[in-house]
Amino acid sequence: MTGRLLRPRLGIVGGLGPLATADFYRKTIDAVPAETDADHISMAILSVPQIPDRSRAIREGSDKPLPWLLEAIDILNNLDVEIIAIACNTAHHWYDALSAGSRAEIIHIADAAIGELHRQYKGSRTAVMATRGTLRSGFYQKRLQEAGLGCHNPMRPAFQRAVDDAIRQVKLGNLAQAKRACAAAFEWCREDGLEAAILACTELPIAAEDVVPEGMLAIDASRALALTCVQRLRNPDRMRNTTM
Amino acid sequence: MTGRLLRPRLGIVGGLGPLATADFYRKTIDAVPAETDADHISMAILSVPQIPDRSRAIREGSDKPLPWLLEAIDILNNLDVEIIAIACNTAHHWYDALSAGSRAEIIHIADAAIGELHRQYKGSRTAVMATRGTLRSGFYQKRLQEAGLGCHNPMRPAFQRAVDDAIRQVKLGNLAQAKRACAAAFEWCREDGLEAAILACTELPIAAEDVVPEGMLAIDASRALALTCVQRLRNPDRMRNTTM
Repeated sequence: MTGRLLRPRLGIVGGLGPLATADFYRKTIDAVPAETDADHISMAILSVPQIPDRSRAIREGSDKPLPWLLEAIDILNNLDVEIIAIACNTAHHWYDALSAGSRAEIIHIADAAIGELHRQYKGSRTAVMATRGTLRSGFYQKRLQEAGLGCHNPMRPAFQRAVDDAIRQVKLGNLAQAKRACAAAFEWCREDGLEAAILACTELPIAAEDVVPEGMLAIDASRALALTCVQRLRNPDRMRNTTM
Repeated sequence: MTGRLLRPRLGIVGGLGPLATADFYRKTIDAVPAETDADHISMAILSVPQIPDRSRAIREGSDKPLPWLLEAIDILNNLDVEIIAIACNTAHHWYDALSAGSRAEIIHIADAAIGELHRQYKGSRTAVMATRGTLRSGFYQKRLQEAGLGCHNPMRPAFQRAVDDAIRQVKLGNLAQAKRACAAAFEWCREDGLEAAILACTELPIAAEDVVPEGMLAIDASRALALTCVQRLRNPDRMRNTTM
């Protein structure tokens, strides 16, 4: 399948939604200190917005998106990529099944985000701004607990409603409304005395741009994943020796 | 190669440079009036910044990038895409060879740009802001002539130097410098009494953002290509019946 000359090193499962993938792609470019085009990392991006709604599937106890995600992973492996990033937090609910079906290592977005949180934050209380599916799945909470941290999302229903709305408005391309909703979610965090939040849905960094309040640390899971992928590919010795 | 569920409809040859492809990807998203993720178009993007310098090859009379481009087209055809866009004007120098080697129709960026110019501009004099390779290749001039228009680039060497610099600064990620250089190129156009310019390098729309002078029509070839691709895929009856 792969030719003699052209080998994409990073495979990206995307389109969930497309703007979030465009943002992630941009972040992988910004993460490389390049002087010429050739310094940048070669990639194959599958942007498939038709993959069934991940958050809804988790809430309904269904695995409907899984065959689609497996197929995407398969195509990227056939292109002989070295590592794979999934530009959608919620899809990581199926990480174990996807990882088992992949020759190329899939870098887990929550590992990348929590690694970044550790580097930047010395406190112990953080919010996880995510889809209801991601929260129901629990992979962020599990990893935070293992890292000696906790997930302390504001209990008020208005907090999660604001997060849901921010995500939905980005998907609709309504960035002004998305920013308003995201600002409201941050305000609920502040009211609960939280100083850190993980933007644990790839739509949220777009909504959070310019609206993170003073004194609040917002960890961008997309950027953390982009940085981790680029570091792995620039330091290949670190690849695959610990995680697989 | 392609699976049962997942079929990318639009194939993009990109990475030339990566920021330009991120910009083009974003434009294909913005071109779709979507209410949910699923309304968006599925795509496969090959971002391969290692493809040898196109402009340099043309100026040196070499076909060095051609085998790379052919391989990219081949991979996208193996993914069973319906149409292909090349997010690099200069690479269209090899359009005929690439098209001959592709089952999927390759939409020509200059056809898209000149179509858009026709819709928006009733005058006859336009500048083509492009790499020296694109200008040497002559495919914009040929199409403009066939459309009864002409390419009237300012003859001062400073004009092309400003265009070259704008492109180079985008590739380096120096957007402020890129905008300054692009603004200078527009000023040379104005001085020659030109009212329209085609941004005929995919880096230039990034450099031109917010610096197009009052009274100057700047046709964004990337946006025109994105619109044409989306229209083709949303009106499949129009596909392949005239051009192949």
